[in-house]
Amino acid sequence: MKLKRSGRMVDLTTYLLQHPHQLIPLSYFVERYQSAKSSISEDLAIIKENFEYQGIGSIITVAGAAGGVKYIPSISKEEASGIIHEIIDMLEDPERLLPGGYLYLTDIIGNPNLVNQVGRLFSSVFSHQKIDAVMTVATKGIPLAYAVASQLNVPVVIVRSNSRVTEGSTVSINYVSGSTKRIQTMALARRSIQKGANVLIIDDFMKAGGTIRGMISLIKEFQAEVAGIGVLVEAQDGAERLVDDYVSLTRLASVNEKEQRIEVEEGNYFNQKETNKNE
Amino acid sequence: MKLKRSGRMVDLTTYLLQHPHQLIPLSYFVERYQSAKSSISEDLAIIKENFEYQGIGSIITVAGAAGGVKYIPSISKEEASGIIHEIIDMLEDPERLLPGGYLYLTDIIGNPNLVNQVGRLFSSVFSHQKIDAVMTVATKGIPLAYAVASQLNVPVVIVRSNSRVTEGSTVSINYVSGSTKRIQTMALARRSIQKGANVLIIDDFMKAGGTIRGMISLIKEFQAEVAGIGVLVEAQDGAERLVDDYVSLTRLASVNEKEQRIEVEEGNYFNQKETNKNE
Repeated sequence: MKLKRSGRMVDLTTYLLQHPHQLIPLSYFVERYQSAKSSISEDLAIIKENFEYQGIGSIITVAGAAGGVKYIPSISKEEASGIIHEIIDMLEDPERLLPGGYLYLTDIIGNPNLVNQVGRLFSSVFSHQKIDAVMTVATKGIPLAYAVASQLNVPVVIVRSNSRVTEGSTVSINYVSGSTKRIQTMALARRSIQKGANVLIIDDFMKAGGTIRGMISLIKEFQAEVAGIGVLVEAQDGAERLVDDYVSLTRLASVNEKEQRIEVEEGNYFNQKETNKNE
Repeated sequence: MKLKRSGRMVDLTTYLLQHPHQLIPLSYFVERYQSAKSSISEDLAIIKENFEYQGIGSIITVAGAAGGVKYIPSISKEEASGIIHEIIDMLEDPERLLPGGYLYLTDIIGNPNLVNQVGRLFSSVFSHQKIDAVMTVATKGIPLAYAVASQLNVPVVIVRSNSRVTEGSTVSINYVSGSTKRIQTMALARRSIQKGANVLIIDDFMKAGGTIRGMISLIKEFQAEVAGIGVLVEAQDGAERLVDDYVSLTRLASVNEKEQRIEVEEGNYFNQKETNKNE
């Protein structure tokens, strides 16, 4: 198709947004728009400027025969802060309090728009690291893991508490839950992770960190590497934390069941981002 | 911010793609770009033309004081056919065959890019119906349900085989699995569906349809309505089908374990689309 600049802008923007972290040869667009390489480079420069101005990402150019352009999603500090504080406000709603001091998170996790924003937050932190897969544990971590993986353009692997016939052969480990101290099992299909893969762990909730430590053991069992850990909510807890190096969006500071009060604060997300930038 | 047309094109396209099925007042863009309403209407006309030409959706304009523009995602017949045949090719890979004639679907469901395409396919079929929520059953249906819900801008509700303390009070039903004839339980948090809501059921695999019939009963239990049913793979089976009215992307025609051969064909997706168009 032959398009005018404004039409190309619409189509190029759509294409890049739908193909994050994917190297696209310039020749692909030359053919798609039947336009000169120079015109397309100019188009891309305008898009890059706009993406960077809006803080929704950058476009990098890789030179050479195997080169092309790649859209790297990110998020501005203002937008990140807005999303995190929206989640904090939602979490502090006393209606969320369940018997036993548990929190009802189902509606937050059930909101695809919010989940996609969370995906953008985590993918932004880990966008400059080599990630080959995102791992989570069934059930509530799944939507978050997909939202992150979708932005990073990598597959998701789901760890389950029971193995199913439809998974083929699985690798299982036993681990000790950090808060209840009970022995539990987690299983993962043998074909789901390659040896040496860099795996990013994403989960909705971390208390003492037993489940996440279980996933770390499982990754080692596959002779793969932990590339990072991201959690939506971390809870303060008397027990010693089993995992040190993680990125959290929010921190549950206190839950007062009697007064029906929940206090939530920012997690370590922003500290983390600064550290990465200074490297 | 004050932007030139090409800059506005990039930003408007990004904004619309990130807010599907959401009515946005024109005044929002007038303020965002500090531009005249007439310029923005022209921009939107170019985007609409391009979206329709590429088959990625349409932009509808709602007149009046409470009016605005809304992006309705859809998919062209060519692109839909391409995605469905890509899935068919993946499904026919004999490596997928597990003992007992089961199929390994984990890698297909684990591919966020493919899952997002599936989301576009189903949201396109159901885009002109009133949908208030997408329902699925844990675990493999979850990514598909989010991909659909994300395009339709509605929440996801996840039915589980066991109730958890973190769900608050739940409604449970017993149902008979269509293929194994065993009695099973499914549960859903009481706060997750409103009375009278229109619920779209999405699942990865349908054999006799027992699980989906279970979800239908559960929806009735909440005094809500079934707005539609979509499945990634339907399997032909000697047993009578318990569910009639569904949209399937692919159909498992035969599995020959001895000869390691899997035959997969198109589901009823395209018939369905025609029917909807004639309404």
